[in-house]
Amino acid sequence: MTQESAYAVVQDYHRAWTSGDVDRAMTRVADDITCRAPGADLTGKAAYRAFIAGFAPALTGLADIASFADGDRVALFYYPETAATTTAPAAECFTVRDGKIAESVLIFDRLSFGPPAEA
Amino acid sequence: MTQESAYAVVQDYHRAWTSGDVDRAMTRVADDITCRAPGADLTGKAAYRAFIAGFAPALTGLADIASFADGDRVALFYYPETAATTTAPAAECFTVRDGKIAESVLIFDRLSFGPPAEA
Repeated sequence: MTQESAYAVVQDYHRAWTSGDVDRAMTRVADDITCRAPGADLTGKAAYRAFIAGFAPALTGLADIASFADGDRVALFYYPETAATTTAPAAECFTVRDGKIAESVLIFDRLSFGPPAEA
Repeated sequence: MTQESAYAVVQDYHRAWTSGDVDRAMTRVADDITCRAPGADLTGKAAYRAFIAGFAPALTGLADIASFADGDRVALFYYPETAATTTAPAAECFTVRDGKIAESVLIFDRLSFGPPAEA
């Protein structure tokens, strides 16, 4: 049993996408991931990838606040720095199953990251 | 040394305000608390109390997602249920010092809890 810890899986995922490597990040994500994001419930890796890939290019930096792990659950709090703000925090609560991220609850305040966009 | 754990302090705080007992909740909060909330940086217990007391009456229920503790830091993820939504999560990352909540980062998506309000 050499499976990585849930914390290691999530940290690698997080480092990958926040450095712009969405492909590598997605190797850490289960095909049937479900994600509750602000204003959107995402189901499946394709939808999740599109969401992350849409935000990643806007990231200009990152500042950690705190991280937590408890069994198969991992939480990250951080500041995603963008042209709009460097002081609006985000939180993610991940559930890892079979070495992949299977569930995510992603929380940030859309208003703090700019005016609401029309799809 | 019988000081309560940071986790116990935060859980009691959380149970108190989410059941409408803002007075009891505030016994868990340091006088010089700082809180980063969506769209507002709060400093001091009076400002923090006003913020929490403004939201507490809107709460119609609560569903837990996960909680974490790591030393003096505690994280809560939950659904604050209101007339506007029961599916918009909130996250809080607390720092406890000397048995009181000294720092809080509070994250939720204002748009999910209703249209932006004018102050």
